[in-house]
Amino acid sequence: MADPKIGVYGLGTMGSALALNMADHGIPVAVSNVTADLIATFERRATPFAERITTAPDLPALVAALPKPRLLLAMIPSTGPVDEMLDTVIPLLEPGDTVIDAGNADFHATRRRAERLAESGLHFVGLGVSGGEAGARHGPSMMFGGSAQSWADLQPILEPIAARFEGTPCVDRMGPDGAGHFVKTVHNGIEYADMQMIAEVYDLLRNGLEHSAEAVADRLEAWNDGPLGSYLFEITAKILRYDDPLGEGPMVDAIRDAAGQKGTGRWTVIEAVQLGQSATMIEAAVAARSWSSETGLREAAGSTFGTARDRPAIDEGDLEAALLAARILEYAQGFRILAAASDRYGWGLDYAAIARVWRAGCIIRAKLLDDISEAFTEGTPQGQLFLAPRFADIFATGIPALRRVVGAATAAGYPLPVLGAALTFWDMMRQPHGTANLIQAQRDFFGNHGYDRLDGQDSHHGPWWDD
Amino acid sequence: MADPKIGVYGLGTMGSALALNMADHGIPVAVSNVTADLIATFERRATPFAERITTAPDLPALVAALPKPRLLLAMIPSTGPVDEMLDTVIPLLEPGDTVIDAGNADFHATRRRAERLAESGLHFVGLGVSGGEAGARHGPSMMFGGSAQSWADLQPILEPIAARFEGTPCVDRMGPDGAGHFVKTVHNGIEYADMQMIAEVYDLLRNGLEHSAEAVADRLEAWNDGPLGSYLFEITAKILRYDDPLGEGPMVDAIRDAAGQKGTGRWTVIEAVQLGQSATMIEAAVAARSWSSETGLREAAGSTFGTARDRPAIDEGDLEAALLAARILEYAQGFRILAAASDRYGWGLDYAAIARVWRAGCIIRAKLLDDISEAFTEGTPQGQLFLAPRFADIFATGIPALRRVVGAATAAGYPLPVLGAALTFWDMMRQPHGTANLIQAQRDFFGNHGYDRLDGQDSHHGPWWDD
Repeated sequence: MADPKIGVYGLGTMGSALALNMADHGIPVAVSNVTADLIATFERRATPFAERITTAPDLPALVAALPKPRLLLAMIPSTGPVDEMLDTVIPLLEPGDTVIDAGNADFHATRRRAERLAESGLHFVGLGVSGGEAGARHGPSMMFGGSAQSWADLQPILEPIAARFEGTPCVDRMGPDGAGHFVKTVHNGIEYADMQMIAEVYDLLRNGLEHSAEAVADRLEAWNDGPLGSYLFEITAKILRYDDPLGEGPMVDAIRDAAGQKGTGRWTVIEAVQLGQSATMIEAAVAARSWSSETGLREAAGSTFGTARDRPAIDEGDLEAALLAARILEYAQGFRILAAASDRYGWGLDYAAIARVWRAGCIIRAKLLDDISEAFTEGTPQGQLFLAPRFADIFATGIPALRRVVGAATAAGYPLPVLGAALTFWDMMRQPHGTANLIQAQRDFFGNHGYDRLDGQDSHHGPWWDD
Repeated sequence: MADPKIGVYGLGTMGSALALNMADHGIPVAVSNVTADLIATFERRATPFAERITTAPDLPALVAALPKPRLLLAMIPSTGPVDEMLDTVIPLLEPGDTVIDAGNADFHATRRRAERLAESGLHFVGLGVSGGEAGARHGPSMMFGGSAQSWADLQPILEPIAARFEGTPCVDRMGPDGAGHFVKTVHNGIEYADMQMIAEVYDLLRNGLEHSAEAVADRLEAWNDGPLGSYLFEITAKILRYDDPLGEGPMVDAIRDAAGQKGTGRWTVIEAVQLGQSATMIEAAVAARSWSSETGLREAAGSTFGTARDRPAIDEGDLEAALLAARILEYAQGFRILAAASDRYGWGLDYAAIARVWRAGCIIRAKLLDDISEAFTEGTPQGQLFLAPRFADIFATGIPALRRVVGAATAAGYPLPVLGAALTFWDMMRQPHGTANLIQAQRDFFGNHGYDRLDGQDSHHGPWWDD
């Protein structure tokens, strides 16, 4: 039995997949779980790697099985259970040890926990892990937030198990404390927008242009071979080819149209707004999911107001270009949040490195991310991704296409929350002179809030105050 | 010198206006301020009511000047200063006394403070006050959150100083603890959306159709005489008629188009999302303000991508109907947040009463609010304002008009964040079958999250898991 290099606590879907991934890559690992049943299940699944697996009956035994400095990775709910685990292990650990939270934690909690552990000379790592169960087992994308020391200790373990893009492992140190979990949160926010954007185009093709599910799959597959190539396009095409084994017709038609959410989309929206940002495409995607769950209300509204829609006058050729432009804008909004957080928390995020880590293994992996990492490496005007010269051509054809798509869908009654938000963002941002002067005048009129003048004169209240 | 009935602490713009309003209505009031200068200023302004004004040099003296049970109203920043004030006054107060925070507080803080004071048998009221300085002085709209006992004590003071709508005072008890401040927060969120909607139509008329500021004022004034009648339309028309005293042309043109925000719009967005709601029209208005402050970025984007827009093919006759429909939807979204909060915090909010309180005195006062209060009194299907039968006719003409306006603006390159969000909300809500089934399929495919079937069969994972 090889001495374990790391302990994994929590043997649910994701924890056991990560532990198996490590063992599969020759890394001896000790494991435990709060209930014994999952330990037994794990042992059965881990038989091929038995020589590299140490099982511990409980958390203290797991800690005792680890060499120093200890590396203890927890894959358990990142709320109360993580704090309870810390209560147990802090007295058992020694300065220089690292505890890793690999769940989807609120980065504020990660920052608090890092501070708490630092008091005892311990390190706390917030590790964002993306790729679902299959990713965790065969190569996830991982966003590390923690000390340089912990990174030095963990890099030899995380790099072999990570997804690879042209040989480069998709794991990196994003920054200290909550940086990894924050980057993972924004990743998920972008995922929400990407999924909703696909659903919007699906609506246009399937319901608007009355294509079969197979035909929509064909379109997605064709796009997937081009610059839109991405895991989400790939799996959506696959999904649309499945028939319902319990009924007739495509599988997708049998599924209730009420989307779940586990919270990271909402977190992204809230954190963005708290940072003075508005990620409107992510906001729209979160809204679409929330509204989808209000089935009864949508039925009532449909029967009151009518559900009729016209055939949208869409040129299918526009959709690919529109989606590509919108996808860049969606990333641009995501990176704006990251930049605001990096400033606020002093993380010094490296945006090219983030895009590199997202190129494989994670749910939003896409060809475009390689271009995005290049764009950041080349330098983006004002740090804004959408101003990067390498995307100018995409926008030159994509924005007019997006405008035609949104216009036709608007006229026909097809809602495009995310694609519409992309165009609104674009049209707001390209006007050096907007209409907020009117809003400033209103605020001064009713609330004496004052304003600045364009000519810089030192006069901050309107003549309405002189009457 | 009459014995004071209430103490007002904090003699800035709003506090002194409220105290003068009380004195003006024959209510003897004691006042104080953390710095002496504002006490002196207040005394000068209050000379006409000197017999009803008691000044106290500091907070303990103010408390000592009050009869029991004491009513102490603070109009100071609702962050640290309120807590510091409480530290000072709690030992000086006796069970049954009430402290009122009349600032724009985060309702979570109000709830915590109410709990803290309850430990000493004291009452804490969160009082939302709207109407700006003029409102506070001559009749604000007030949203009371606190105990029934405090309401009984304060009603005789608040009703005389409140704005009146056809004789009914615009103040009411919304519910316990944070209910008043929450209702005020949502009021402000609606205010953001209303102001942005006006700015969007202004953009279309002024820049799109090349009307003069005066001509836009004419339109707003005409609409203000109809069902869109509201304070914000009225003052916007007034603003647009002012010339710049320091230069040439309309005042509005001299103002920098960078909108400030003091936080209540963002609070509304965050609280909505935390309650599982998405107030997309308010989100869009908050986004528009945030983006307006990024002048340098907008200049760069404009010079990179071009600022050209086409003349929007808008029928001016559509704008009034479109605005009216959108305004109802904006209120509908606001009341959805209120309903979610009422459920979460057990406030038992009375939506008709809220609309009544908003009919006069506050910034969003509008003719429509009388209809809204009637609609809630009559009963709204599923509690949803936009399903109220009395608005069906407005939507029947307003939605097609809104659709034409958004379509024309989209084609011409005019962003309509709030009006566009209104139409998206409408088109999402009236479809009993949306496309969240595809999102559920994706979530199950990559994350094993499961789904429900429309036919209710107990099968929650796709055939992709069988391969």
